[in-house]
Amino acid sequence: MPAHRIAVIAGDGIGNEVMPEGLRVVEAAARRFNIDLQFTTMAWANCDYYLEHGQMMPSDWFAQLKDFDAIYFGAVGWPDKVPDHISLWGSLLKFRREFDEYVNLRPVRLMPGVPCPLANKKPGDIDFYVVRENTEGEYSSVGGRMFEGTERETVLQESVFTRKGVDRILKYAFELAQSRPKKHLTSATKSNGIAISMPFWDERVEAMGPSFPDVRWDKYHIDILAARFVLSPERFDVVVASNLFGDILSDLGPACTGTIAIAPSANINPERTFPSVFEPVHGSAPDIYGQNIANPIGMIWSGAMMLDFLGNGDARYTAAHDAIVRAIEQVLEHGPRTPDMGGSASTTEVGMAVAELL
Amino acid sequence: MPAHRIAVIAGDGIGNEVMPEGLRVVEAAARRFNIDLQFTTMAWANCDYYLEHGQMMPSDWFAQLKDFDAIYFGAVGWPDKVPDHISLWGSLLKFRREFDEYVNLRPVRLMPGVPCPLANKKPGDIDFYVVRENTEGEYSSVGGRMFEGTERETVLQESVFTRKGVDRILKYAFELAQSRPKKHLTSATKSNGIAISMPFWDERVEAMGPSFPDVRWDKYHIDILAARFVLSPERFDVVVASNLFGDILSDLGPACTGTIAIAPSANINPERTFPSVFEPVHGSAPDIYGQNIANPIGMIWSGAMMLDFLGNGDARYTAAHDAIVRAIEQVLEHGPRTPDMGGSASTTEVGMAVAELL
Ligand SMILES: CC(C)[C@H](C(=O)O)[C@@H](O)C(=O)O
Ligand SMILES: CC(C)[C@H](C(=O)O)[C@@H](O)C(=O)O
Repeated sequence: MPAHRIAVIAGDGIGNEVMPEGLRVVEAAARRFNIDLQFTTMAWANCDYYLEHGQMMPSDWFAQLKDFDAIYFGAVGWPDKVPDHISLWGSLLKFRREFDEYVNLRPVRLMPGVPCPLANKKPGDIDFYVVRENTEGEYSSVGGRMFEGTERETVLQESVFTRKGVDRILKYAFELAQSRPKKHLTSATKSNGIAISMPFWDERVEAMGPSFPDVRWDKYHIDILAARFVLSPERFDVVVASNLFGDILSDLGPACTGTIAIAPSANINPERTFPSVFEPVHGSAPDIYGQNIANPIGMIWSGAMMLDFLGNGDARYTAAHDAIVRAIEQVLEHGPRTPDMGGSASTTEVGMAVAELL
Repeated sequence: MPAHRIAVIAGDGIGNEVMPEGLRVVEAAARRFNIDLQFTTMAWANCDYYLEHGQMMPSDWFAQLKDFDAIYFGAVGWPDKVPDHISLWGSLLKFRREFDEYVNLRPVRLMPGVPCPLANKKPGDIDFYVVRENTEGEYSSVGGRMFEGTERETVLQESVFTRKGVDRILKYAFELAQSRPKKHLTSATKSNGIAISMPFWDERVEAMGPSFPDVRWDKYHIDILAARFVLSPERFDVVVASNLFGDILSDLGPACTGTIAIAPSANINPERTFPSVFEPVHGSAPDIYGQNIANPIGMIWSGAMMLDFLGNGDARYTAAHDAIVRAIEQVLEHGPRTPDMGGSASTTEVGMAVAELL
């Protein structure tokens, strides 16, 4: 294959600390498995850039990025500098939408060596995917205020669901379920309370079910589904959810496995018309920035997902992905560990330890 | 005080099994503490009524109910008979909105004798309230479909937040926090993704904060807040949330304490212009209906909250509430227990055991 072009955007806060470790490991894996990667670092899409330029990214960001194969992304947000809805809508959420990365894929896995907040679980017990719709639904900046600043102030916020948007994420999720041994899909809904959009979501699931006769599917309202993540996480295989519900479930799932700091995610444009974005689930964590104690494993694991995606089925890339995940597992089990995992190692030490195992 | 008039609505499924036990205990407490209660049973607001009449309730339901002091409510919903959004919007959600029960109050408490799904927690460690906005926000039947049935199908779902609606729930929550030893309020938001309504919610919290200088408040995005319910539930005291976020958190909280089946809730109209509704958090559970194995403790505990509310500060009523909660604690600790709690007692046996302790 020709060299893969990867844009590197560290973003804010600990994004800048975990990114070098992600790169260290991805480069080590690429060397070992003969994968040709070309990295280009972008110094924008962060809150300091906003303070200087009044926008999160240069006006030609789309043209600058659109021909990359992937974007390796740290974390954006620094609320004391720029309100979150401005920094996120000006960067990450733009990528997701304008590069049509309509699948947000997030593994939830109980890993060895990670203290689990749930009682009586062991590695292997929890192992599923959250497939989150990533471009529409509840995440919208459509709406507005009436009677602003008065007692009658009224705020309307639109959620927008399209058949195209719902069907394509459901299809991805059904196919993913079909490819797994358990072939089980769970749909998150709230059609008993959110009376227009969620019954529509349910209808589309129902309509697609028969096309995947070997996939067993069920649905739960989001309230009870969140509860079941805590009470019986073993029973999930693939969970498909709208933008907001997927956001919640893909933080809650990793929390249940004790792994928020290490959870990865992929924002995928399956058609490969535009670059996909690979980023850890955790945020920019301004409160711990500057100490070199952030856990780099989410960033590293996201890098493994990126290699897998770039390979598009090629065995060398799958092997590179698997080698990184195994190295992560070993470091989680035997250390070194950052403070959030009960250790005292630095971000750099953990990154180097993973890279050495490759 | 004159007799309190209470409308009794069992609803669907296990609502019919837990209600008699709720009444048994509430009546026992009323006798012991000399509280005068008058019950009137309504045979509507259930899915069978809908199948017969094409609506969940008689057309004059409002007139029939409005002069009651409280509604003691089981659970509504039987999706195989009537879609949830029809049965709920035709009953419970009507009460909440038309009786302006704008506070949904739900205690989250780790009780003795209840197996906790979280590792290393003991009774007393988790003890907080979720204060949920109960009339507006994301729960709306405003919106619609365009291009229905075609590839272009587009569904709009409106969320509606008003200054009045937001301010009054925040005020209730700040006051509740103020009345508690820790004086700590947490606001649930998602202003980084839901870009119109949630920044407004944040603004109103910010505006109200200074009126409660002794209350320490903070805010979390709903994704990470859900994660913290699992990772550090000890740190919460009062959590205030919009309708949807409150719905999720008030199932997730009880799940984290292993108590979904026993969690109570109060839908309160604080001005007492209209009746308030007291109902267990659990639903109608058609799958276990008919076996007399449903756990009646959520229903009973909701009855305790009802007495407390009716007393409006009167010590006898508070004592009745506390006596019921103590009796619940004893039964949880020493049995009898329904199957969901690892026992083999029936719904009736548990109800009788609690009543006997009074
Ligand atoms: C049944 C449903 C409409 C309801 C809600 O979402 O409010 C329930 O989940 C609850 O929490 O009382
Ligand atoms: C930062 C925020 C806008 C984002 C989201 O809500 O999508 C984050 O929580 C995530 O899950 O990637």
